Amino acid sequence: METLEQTKSRFADHVKLLQDKITQKLRDIDPELQLTEDIWERLDYEGNPGGGGRTRAFSGNIIENAGVNTSLVHGAVSDAFAKQIGGTDNTMWATGISLIIHPRNPRVPTSHANFRMIQAGDKYWFGGGADLTPYYPHVEDFQYFHDIWKNACEPYGHYDKWKKTCDEYFVNKHRDNEMRGVGGIFYDHYNSGDLEVDYNMFTNISESFIESYFPILEKRRDEAFTEDDEDFQLHRRGRYVEFNLLHDRGTHFGLKSNGRTDSILISLPGRCKFSYAYKPKAGSVHEEMMQYYFPRDW
Amino acid sequence: METLEQTKSRFADHVKLLQDKITQKLRDIDPELQLTEDIWERLDYEGNPGGGGRTRAFSGNIIENAGVNTSLVHGAVSDAFAKQIGGTDNTMWATGISLIIHPRNPRVPTSHANFRMIQAGDKYWFGGGADLTPYYPHVEDFQYFHDIWKNACEPYGHYDKWKKTCDEYFVNKHRDNEMRGVGGIFYDHYNSGDLEVDYNMFTNISESFIESYFPILEKRRDEAFTEDDEDFQLHRRGRYVEFNLLHDRGTHFGLKSNGRTDSILISLPGRCKFSYAYKPKAGSVHEEMMQYYFPRDW
Repeated sequence: METLEQTKSRFADHVKLLQDKITQKLRDIDPELQLTEDIWERLDYEGNPGGGGRTRAFSGNIIENAGVNTSLVHGAVSDAFAKQIGGTDNTMWATGISLIIHPRNPRVPTSHANFRMIQAGDKYWFGGGADLTPYYPHVEDFQYFHDIWKNACEPYGHYDKWKKTCDEYFVNKHRDNEMRGVGGIFYDHYNSGDLEVDYNMFTNISESFIESYFPILEKRRDEAFTEDDEDFQLHRRGRYVEFNLLHDRGTHFGLKSNGRTDSILISLPGRCKFSYAYKPKAGSVHEEMMQYYFPRDW
Repeated sequence: METLEQTKSRFADHVKLLQDKITQKLRDIDPELQLTEDIWERLDYEGNPGGGGRTRAFSGNIIENAGVNTSLVHGAVSDAFAKQIGGTDNTMWATGISLIIHPRNPRVPTSHANFRMIQAGDKYWFGGGADLTPYYPHVEDFQYFHDIWKNACEPYGHYDKWKKTCDEYFVNKHRDNEMRGVGGIFYDHYNSGDLEVDYNMFTNISESFIESYFPILEKRRDEAFTEDDEDFQLHRRGRYVEFNLLHDRGTHFGLKSNGRTDSILISLPGRCKFSYAYKPKAGSVHEEMMQYYFPRDW
């Protein structure tokens, strides 16, 4: 049987491989895509080497901006931090992939995903998920995205709960509980007690990202769009910014723990708009879209 | 001698009059300016009528977007809220003006100000300030802005301290302590013990906003600008959004206390940009501008 250390190492390799696969898919789709890769290192709470990461930032024509990041961090943490993450001592270890894709065309949804394995003291767990933020009511795309994640999670009996957790998490409470997008799956602190089973489940599930999103991107990338479509997209991206900066625990956690700011805020869209008391035009397809930013069965 | 109730009522009238004066200045400057006025009411913590406000949202050609808001709120508050604001019982009363002006031309600075009077239990105080966020190194404008506020505050002996408080407040800690703009003045919880003196000082100081900002707006409004100027402006506006959503106590306080979201987030710029690891072009006037986003003597 594999040791915990061996599994951690395999998970770290897994997320880096997934990063490479998604990088390749993005390059295939957008020949103009510029990639900036930053390899960074960090110090732990006591000032000792504490791992680092590989940040990949993209900008292009089809893809306005995207980030596909991995990191592997470890070492001493503060008492407050140990308490916050529920650790049994003042050490932690974490590896994961976090990605965001903001296409330029407003008929193509934005997508976000992350998958991670964390150890704090002698406890460890897996977490992550994927969610879709569309700007146009191509309802069949929303159904497709959820279907893929349902197929990925249902064999383990987790779809219903993880879908619900996602619906509850990506919410702008200050905007009458509007969701950031149309949801997906999200879960945290998962540990069934069987490391091998959990590892296989999480790596399998994470592999579904490419299938869940890229067919939508390829199908819609050249779809004609209007100025109104773009105006709605840019305002909804504004709401995306509001969620990430006001509510996202990962963003706050990263910034408060002296994470690498540029890697964390890579999640923000290239362009966005804010207008006082913004509402889509009455009777428009964008007004129709608004109903999908609330939980529903998929 | 005037009672506290009479002074509170006079301060409420003062901020409404100032709102009207600033509204008129904006209209004089931008004939295309559209004004949306929303009169709103709120309930207090116990569900009783708790005052309300007058929100004025502007959008036009010279002024891309602006908000000039007043409110007068009162009534019961939660224990937690009373504790947070240092009240002596579970009641509060507050009135003030809060304003933001985002001109379209990147050669014209953004400006923000607020002035307020607050009572919590049997304690009361004044607070507020004004700050400038320029995007182009028209250094004489920064000096002018600070000179006006220096002239306003120095007779009371407050300029040095209030300038410093401002420099320390509008800071993006997560961006290597870069300031949002070039500062101004800011102060809170002011009560000298002499209500009449404090009232006269704060109303006098607040009157300086028009003189501090509108001459800069008029001087620069028609100045030719480049695409690079606008790109820098939109990225710095992105940092403005980061400050307001990640760090601004007033924004968090307003949203957490069930304030009116649209009136609070009126502070955000109409358009903005985010790019991974953004830096102005080497050797550009915008790179030169960066040095002013740190405290200096004015």
